[in-house]
Amino acid sequence: MKRPLLVAALLLLSACAQPLRGTGDLGLVVERADGRVMVVETTTNSMLASVPGLGDLSHAALVYSRDARFAFVFGRDGGLTKLDLLTGAIANRVVQSGNSIGGAISQDGSLVAVANYTPGGIKVFDTATLAPVADIPAIGADGKASKVIGIADLPGRRFIYTLYDAGEIWIADLADPARPALTKFTNIGKLPYDALITGDGRWYLAGLFGEDGIALLDLWNLDRGVTRILDGYGKGAEPLPVFKMPHLRGWAAAGNEVWLPAIGRHQVLVVDKTTWKEKARVDVAGQPVFAMARPDGRQVWVNFAVPDYNVVQVIDVPSKRVIKTIEPGKAILHMEFTPKGERVWLSARDSDKVVVYDTQTLEQVAELPAAKPSGIFFTSRAHRTGL
Amino acid sequence: MKRPLLVAALLLLSACAQPLRGTGDLGLVVERADGRVMVVETTTNSMLASVPGLGDLSHAALVYSRDARFAFVFGRDGGLTKLDLLTGAIANRVVQSGNSIGGAISQDGSLVAVANYTPGGIKVFDTATLAPVADIPAIGADGKASKVIGIADLPGRRFIYTLYDAGEIWIADLADPARPALTKFTNIGKLPYDALITGDGRWYLAGLFGEDGIALLDLWNLDRGVTRILDGYGKGAEPLPVFKMPHLRGWAAAGNEVWLPAIGRHQVLVVDKTTWKEKARVDVAGQPVFAMARPDGRQVWVNFAVPDYNVVQVIDVPSKRVIKTIEPGKAILHMEFTPKGERVWLSARDSDKVVVYDTQTLEQVAELPAAKPSGIFFTSRAHRTGL
Repeated sequence: MKRPLLVAALLLLSACAQPLRGTGDLGLVVERADGRVMVVETTTNSMLASVPGLGDLSHAALVYSRDARFAFVFGRDGGLTKLDLLTGAIANRVVQSGNSIGGAISQDGSLVAVANYTPGGIKVFDTATLAPVADIPAIGADGKASKVIGIADLPGRRFIYTLYDAGEIWIADLADPARPALTKFTNIGKLPYDALITGDGRWYLAGLFGEDGIALLDLWNLDRGVTRILDGYGKGAEPLPVFKMPHLRGWAAAGNEVWLPAIGRHQVLVVDKTTWKEKARVDVAGQPVFAMARPDGRQVWVNFAVPDYNVVQVIDVPSKRVIKTIEPGKAILHMEFTPKGERVWLSARDSDKVVVYDTQTLEQVAELPAAKPSGIFFTSRAHRTGL
Repeated sequence: MKRPLLVAALLLLSACAQPLRGTGDLGLVVERADGRVMVVETTTNSMLASVPGLGDLSHAALVYSRDARFAFVFGRDGGLTKLDLLTGAIANRVVQSGNSIGGAISQDGSLVAVANYTPGGIKVFDTATLAPVADIPAIGADGKASKVIGIADLPGRRFIYTLYDAGEIWIADLADPARPALTKFTNIGKLPYDALITGDGRWYLAGLFGEDGIALLDLWNLDRGVTRILDGYGKGAEPLPVFKMPHLRGWAAAGNEVWLPAIGRHQVLVVDKTTWKEKARVDVAGQPVFAMARPDGRQVWVNFAVPDYNVVQVIDVPSKRVIKTIEPGKAILHMEFTPKGERVWLSARDSDKVVVYDTQTLEQVAELPAAKPSGIFFTSRAHRTGL
């Protein structure tokens, strides 16, 4: 009689072998070469687990569940993986398309949408079970399927995203998941390559690759349609060949400004969020890939495309001056600030490490080994629209 | 040999009887009459635990640890309680003064500071152990101890707070906790009754009770000193007797505006954050206590002092119009938005319940029984300066 009870007790015990911990100081680092994701904590800067089996993560993004316990990882091979940060294990996984570049989670946390290159369109899943909920091909006015980029969540059960090939912006409302309602904005510009939504969920900006300018949509006044800002901002100078597409995301906002990589140039554009006019440009060390504002908006950190990707620059926002150029490691692919901004983590892919900087002293304070790290994502994103 | 093993296994098992969960969707509701705090989750709107033994919570505030697992509850009787949301139990508790009204946690999460009425001043503690670290009496230029109000964290290990009686603003830098460095701004105005820091950590605003106007400090340019804004905003109208002091906190910011209760009036002032000039006033149903912006800044919700405290009004920010007046229950003391703003929780003290509203439909969607509830605090505050 005692033995089965003992075995049962030991089995249950091993199941809760995880000590209790909060999820507020956790994060994930993509180890792109190995299809692994590393669970980290930012209080003492350590690794908690390394999770294999996530497929092709050569370009990966992720979003968090509203309780910050789970991540939904979007892999390049179309894999959608639900990862449990507390157990350091895969909770669920589906391969839902041929080629995907990102996704979003609904405001209420119930749905996750994946943006697919192949086949072009979005697919929506129930976050609890990963059961498929909707499949919305991105067939543009030209009758062809487009790659989908720049997907973000809107209030309600809505997602906004952009059709790269067709040059359109769509909003899908899944209040009734069986009957998604689509709102389409056509002819928004040539080859929108990425898009961001501001943290307040009001403004959607799509950067154009086929022409100089940004497509802008006021989500609180959809009847006004898509307008064009920063038109011809590159006029007068020959653009350089683009080695790596800049990435646009909601961290670009610093106070009442939006800081955008100027595609094909060694510059960051500063845009006034009230007038949507350019107010400044900052010359930088190379072609910017990410321009990320510290959470308080007092600094913007910029990383670069090859061949300048061993360098990161820190810009003081009030003065618009580069205040430091640092070399944290080789091939800096991504940066992420702790929620209150006191530290920033940077992935140095070719140095096989993640480095941690103090944003006040601008000095390195820690590093962690990581195999070809790329994206870094902290759980504070769980509470923010568009991230 | 088997029995001790079995007993040990069962003991360990009971110790980890808590199922794993994230902390991102948790919150706390103060049950003021009973000295209890209720742990809630906002995904399905339920109570997880009710924790007794927190002393006098007739006026209580709290802040969260950076991992969002613990809350530091500041009780009116000077109690400082470290509460574990995952176990639903008190982790530690000290009674550190005679009478306290609030506190703050340092940017790196290592220190918690309590603002005391009696004796006037702040006391700072190690968040891991609650060991005392510093005791800084608030002796004003007049040589007398002041009540301390409006405490918030600043980057680094700094705290900013206001001396009510002396009319001063102090910054305490605890980089070296044994030797706090103080920066003092004197003659900032008469009887500053509360203060807020904007979410970017740049602006500190202290509301004045002794005169019309707000004291403003630019934390990125301390050499400019304290300036006065909204001077004489009440001129021309006799102020009403103030039944309850308005509360100022960082949620007052909606986009590039700051929304402030006009003390002694049935109005909310709208201030332009670029010029610090009044841009609008909104007439409301009573004397506002809290004016809280939805996280996207598209609505401001207002509750009121007695006798109008059974009413809450919703203001549309772009149009500055009251779009709804609701009666969620009796004696609405506090409101809190979910991190992405889709819902708001309100405490109805004299209805012994907390009610949950959908901020899109403006309809009630849930309620939970609670004994004389007052403050409601969600864990997303863990990631925000000044909250």
